[in-house]
Amino acid sequence: MSTVLTGIKPTGRVHIGNYIAAIKPALEIAKNRDNTALYFIADYHGLTFIQNRDEFNDLSYGIAATWLALGLDPEQVVFYRQSDVPEIFELSWILACMAPKGLMNRAHAYKAIADKNEQLGVDTDTGVNMGLFTYPILMAADILLFQTDQVPVGKDQIQHVEIARDLAEAFNRIYGDTFKLPNYIVDEQTAVIPGLDGRKMSKSYNNTIPLFETADSLKKLVSKIKTDSTPPNEPKDPEASNVFLLYKEFAADAQIEVMRERYRSGISWGEAKQELYQVMNAFLEGPREKYNRYMADRDQIDDILRDGARKARAVAQPLLEQLKYRLGRYR
Amino acid sequence: MSTVLTGIKPTGRVHIGNYIAAIKPALEIAKNRDNTALYFIADYHGLTFIQNRDEFNDLSYGIAATWLALGLDPEQVVFYRQSDVPEIFELSWILACMAPKGLMNRAHAYKAIADKNEQLGVDTDTGVNMGLFTYPILMAADILLFQTDQVPVGKDQIQHVEIARDLAEAFNRIYGDTFKLPNYIVDEQTAVIPGLDGRKMSKSYNNTIPLFETADSLKKLVSKIKTDSTPPNEPKDPEASNVFLLYKEFAADAQIEVMRERYRSGISWGEAKQELYQVMNAFLEGPREKYNRYMADRDQIDDILRDGARKARAVAQPLLEQLKYRLGRYR
Repeated sequence: MSTVLTGIKPTGRVHIGNYIAAIKPALEIAKNRDNTALYFIADYHGLTFIQNRDEFNDLSYGIAATWLALGLDPEQVVFYRQSDVPEIFELSWILACMAPKGLMNRAHAYKAIADKNEQLGVDTDTGVNMGLFTYPILMAADILLFQTDQVPVGKDQIQHVEIARDLAEAFNRIYGDTFKLPNYIVDEQTAVIPGLDGRKMSKSYNNTIPLFETADSLKKLVSKIKTDSTPPNEPKDPEASNVFLLYKEFAADAQIEVMRERYRSGISWGEAKQELYQVMNAFLEGPREKYNRYMADRDQIDDILRDGARKARAVAQPLLEQLKYRLGRYR
Repeated sequence: MSTVLTGIKPTGRVHIGNYIAAIKPALEIAKNRDNTALYFIADYHGLTFIQNRDEFNDLSYGIAATWLALGLDPEQVVFYRQSDVPEIFELSWILACMAPKGLMNRAHAYKAIADKNEQLGVDTDTGVNMGLFTYPILMAADILLFQTDQVPVGKDQIQHVEIARDLAEAFNRIYGDTFKLPNYIVDEQTAVIPGLDGRKMSKSYNNTIPLFETADSLKKLVSKIKTDSTPPNEPKDPEASNVFLLYKEFAADAQIEVMRERYRSGISWGEAKQELYQVMNAFLEGPREKYNRYMADRDQIDDILRDGARKARAVAQPLLEQLKYRLGRYR
């Protein structure tokens, strides 16, 4: 029985690339009944860069609705909002006292900004708030408070789990064995999902297909996917085509086989895109409807997340009490 | 009606110098019934430098017992332990997101260590943990969570209140008027209390008279106070004498007048110290007995502080909910 924790940052509109690379594999983990799976909306992490009431609100509810719509089952996992678990922030302070400042100086996100500032010839810390500087400690608290065994991460997030391990070890060294040391799991298989222009699908390239577009809008976006100029009826290499690559993510195995043959015998790009739209829409229409329903009834989201927070706190509170005992808080 | 907040750090054995310079004036404030006075044991601040179970425990209970023994009335003030008010740590994270890192780079306590490290030619951040680096933010949370009007501080603490103001202003600027801007009160009158060797009484000089010594031990310590070599029977200048300076802090006005005359007409140092011991012991024997009683019954301290925490949280919780609404946490 192992505890797996996934943090979900409320950042912008979720797109097909996010779904395939991050959400889909994370939902697979939830299905493994040998795990205790925790999923949390990291809304307070969002505060380091979203300081606007409406945006914060829409993104937080939006991301919760997205995961619920895509099939996260709050009965089978613990699904909560970080800001509903105050124990995380108290633990964060405790861990801060165990964290050498040098560890934060070397954290990637901070270093990237500091390096850029130095290149620009401005003060190293220009535009850096203390939330941004210290968030790896909050992340360590997110992880350690639940005695997490495994944290599925992208490669750029490995350092966060390493920092959590470092802080757990520091605490254990001083106060005796208390925290489990978490491990990261990196999904090496993750394909790069191409965007409309063929580059990696990313908000910063403005080439995304948002997940919950209307069917019409989805159809239009799919028709914009860049293809080569091979004429209709001429054979096409399915594996070299971005349209086929996306098709594979949504179609069943049998469909994929048939489609591969049609590429080889010369499907037109128009038709290929039409087929892609069909499988995408078939997959997305259920979740899209659910998403819209959740967003129209945010009380329901609150109920679900509050219920999850109750479960999370039932784990967190006894551990925090034990920690405080070890620190010397109690007689 | 103004809210006055005093933080009490659990550091070492309290001595006569602490009492006269810090505790006595703070207890005066508590007597002003026009104020809401909050006093809290800043135990989690102690964690930046006390990472030992027994020491943390003894110092936390010890400092609480000290203030209670000296007359802090938990019915008239809100007296609580920081670690019993989790809202403080959540607010601390919110404020961190509003705090430019440069503000912490310039905080005195951090700068002092960083400067020293640079002089020693070692890495700037050697020996600096993130608790130490970020504690001015936690202090701002301590202050702002209660809409504090006034914070009585020593001169070296003025910057902390200024940082709290800065963060309150930053929050108010982004989210609309929310926090009161706190002011500091510096007691300019505070006399420097001489230690046994005539220098300022301070743990670092190892020249203190601890507050709750036994009567015998107190007598011995008083006899060690350094004096000049004026022979008995020769006139002595009371205002130039450390023995007289301490006497004034514990004797009644009429006693002080009489003693001043005795100095002028030539009291011996032995006798002068005996008189000092008498007034000190007369003042301290009640508190000493109370202190020992509290320390022998820590459940009673817990009850008092828990009760205080309930009162503190009744103020803190609605404010935190309002803050979270403004951040965008709620629909």
